[in-house]
Amino acid sequence: MQAEIITIGDEILIGQVVDTNSAFIGKALNNIGVSVYQITSVQDDKQHILKALAEAEENADIIIVTGGLGPTKDDITKHTICEYFNDTLVRNVSVTENIEKLWREHVKQPIQQVNLDQAFVPSTAKVLMNLVGSAPGMWIEKGDKVFISMPGVPFEMKALMEEEVLPRLTIKYKRPFIIHRTLLTYGMGESRLATKIEAWEDNLPKHIKLAYLPNLGKVRLRLSGKGFDEQVLIDEIEELIKVVLPLIEDVFVGFEEDGDIEVLIGKQLTKNNKTLAVVESCTGGKLAETFTEHPGASSFFKGGMITYATQTKIDILGVLEQTIKKYSVVSEEVAKEMAVQCRLLYKSDYAISTTGTAGPTKGDAEAEVGTVFIALATKEGVFCEKYELGNNRTRVINKAVNKALEQLQKEIFKN
Amino acid sequence: MQAEIITIGDEILIGQVVDTNSAFIGKALNNIGVSVYQITSVQDDKQHILKALAEAEENADIIIVTGGLGPTKDDITKHTICEYFNDTLVRNVSVTENIEKLWREHVKQPIQQVNLDQAFVPSTAKVLMNLVGSAPGMWIEKGDKVFISMPGVPFEMKALMEEEVLPRLTIKYKRPFIIHRTLLTYGMGESRLATKIEAWEDNLPKHIKLAYLPNLGKVRLRLSGKGFDEQVLIDEIEELIKVVLPLIEDVFVGFEEDGDIEVLIGKQLTKNNKTLAVVESCTGGKLAETFTEHPGASSFFKGGMITYATQTKIDILGVLEQTIKKYSVVSEEVAKEMAVQCRLLYKSDYAISTTGTAGPTKGDAEAEVGTVFIALATKEGVFCEKYELGNNRTRVINKAVNKALEQLQKEIFKN
Repeated sequence: MQAEIITIGDEILIGQVVDTNSAFIGKALNNIGVSVYQITSVQDDKQHILKALAEAEENADIIIVTGGLGPTKDDITKHTICEYFNDTLVRNVSVTENIEKLWREHVKQPIQQVNLDQAFVPSTAKVLMNLVGSAPGMWIEKGDKVFISMPGVPFEMKALMEEEVLPRLTIKYKRPFIIHRTLLTYGMGESRLATKIEAWEDNLPKHIKLAYLPNLGKVRLRLSGKGFDEQVLIDEIEELIKVVLPLIEDVFVGFEEDGDIEVLIGKQLTKNNKTLAVVESCTGGKLAETFTEHPGASSFFKGGMITYATQTKIDILGVLEQTIKKYSVVSEEVAKEMAVQCRLLYKSDYAISTTGTAGPTKGDAEAEVGTVFIALATKEGVFCEKYELGNNRTRVINKAVNKALEQLQKEIFKN
Repeated sequence: MQAEIITIGDEILIGQVVDTNSAFIGKALNNIGVSVYQITSVQDDKQHILKALAEAEENADIIIVTGGLGPTKDDITKHTICEYFNDTLVRNVSVTENIEKLWREHVKQPIQQVNLDQAFVPSTAKVLMNLVGSAPGMWIEKGDKVFISMPGVPFEMKALMEEEVLPRLTIKYKRPFIIHRTLLTYGMGESRLATKIEAWEDNLPKHIKLAYLPNLGKVRLRLSGKGFDEQVLIDEIEELIKVVLPLIEDVFVGFEEDGDIEVLIGKQLTKNNKTLAVVESCTGGKLAETFTEHPGASSFFKGGMITYATQTKIDILGVLEQTIKKYSVVSEEVAKEMAVQCRLLYKSDYAISTTGTAGPTKGDAEAEVGTVFIALATKEGVFCEKYELGNNRTRVINKAVNKALEQLQKEIFKN
């Protein structure tokens, strides 16, 4: 059972938009046992779309197309699919009603003809009702194969996948089970990890694959297995994990399927009835945002401060001016005072601080670009680590966030 | 002159990693006049990679491959490319030296055999030296066509594109000019925009295309032209923009090529010698991060506060307890006090606040999920807007950030 994803839109090919839809769809299909054979991104061009549809039909059982269903003139997917199936467009009454309802209740503007025209669909298509947008999804069967077309707006595509596409695929096709277990590790490079677990990796059974996914101070190790007996597969993978865990216990922080590291930290804090606050200089809000993007953050996250200008560290946070004068603003001493003050102000159990130079220039600091101090204050005291994270601003910020999470995880899960 | 991008890695197809490399490469190629015909993502599977290479060779002049060059056993791209060209791998001395230098100066761990083996490249490949990682880039010519292979690590790929690939392509191929101009608009849906500019759009010349890119409260309008006389093309597009601008002046905020809206705001603040601070509840650090991810933020951004827990709004920010009791924490009155207090604390010219319920639950607030108040304090006073942003947490956060940027832009660029 194989799928191909086709994403349509010049904006993807010229790099104006990152295609996040394919990753969402790939993950969702995997969860129901469908492998994605290929992802193909093509231009808003009729001949090219027709060619991509024909090639996908050869390779895959399920062809999922996103994009090009908007109301504007550059959107040609619907007409092209219609041509591919030698079909004609007919107005769908339910879609018309849905569009009228959306405009009445949400848009609250006069409805445009171009939006009403979105209710036209190929006559052989089953409509997948898009309750949150005007472009309907379409489901067209051809022999054993199915072609699915969805709008490219991520929010609308996701709702259609969850409400319509996945339930229908689950009924239509018999699928194997695909099980992924991903071990999150922090603080060791992929080559060293690979050497540590080499003997174990060499003895993996053929139907279970291992992949290394390194990224800015963390490496994810993904085990993937496929088979028709779900429980056997789960047990096999669990046994393999039991063998490898002792080899990497100093860098292992949890399983990605249980959540990202910040989610694991949040769950543990919530369970222990503890709270966290952050104070950020070089990471500029990114660390706070990493926690608050997830639901449930308010049960452990008290808040944070971004003391970007040096003077705000003194005026608002209460770092001593002489500490900054004596040690410079990027220093262990300032990082520690920041964390301690933050913990006091926010009345939190833990507080973590970042101060460093993300670059490209050094700003008020004496330290080189890429130097970052991260301090963690607890009721026992305050501990600081120093890092050299290179000279690329985005990487320095993201690595610093990962290092802060690593320090916090170690502290919160220690006993 | 057409290119095809092939990204290799199971992690892309199962949705564990979003392919951001293709967007970067697409944009960079466009800037030198090379169109991307197609992006193809394939599995770490030899037969599939060989098939993708053969198809790309038919469609494109330039074939760019990323991924699968790591030191671990799941990385098979190099061997497969070698097989595609009936070539053999030979050790490259310069690459060996580069790897040894990286380990000596940065990794500071014993070097592994798997990393030394990364110095093997196909005998006909020109090495593109990767100064920031152990996997070399490769450049293989076949007739008029060129195959380029780079590691999938975004940081390494970007350095190779900029230092090696783009300069070499510029020398090797004569290319047309591709000009994009993208008008950023905030606060109007794409259908209404399309109706406003319909007559203008219908009269666009054939070689200039218009695209609508809607996203969470903003719509980008992209004009793309291609031709061999750069100045003629630039002038043509400028003339078209002069005609359309008066039709959309109430929602136009600037050109994306000059920077995102937060960059435009930052430049204007810096130019006027004014400063900004933010205080965030529901956006949780995302607004601050939007400013601080760009270099130069420290010249206008004083810092911010994340008052996530209600009590911190009182204790640290100084919002009056009775205001929260009387109006509830998600209210116009609280948003206004937050902004005013933030402006005083940070001694900034402008301060902007967000308070709302991002969901999925209402927390301490009385307001419904999706209700967000955004207040902007200036030396003249404080102004607040109320929004209803739906019930999807990620969308509420991101839309609120866009709305805050829209309010700020209007204020800062007024007159």
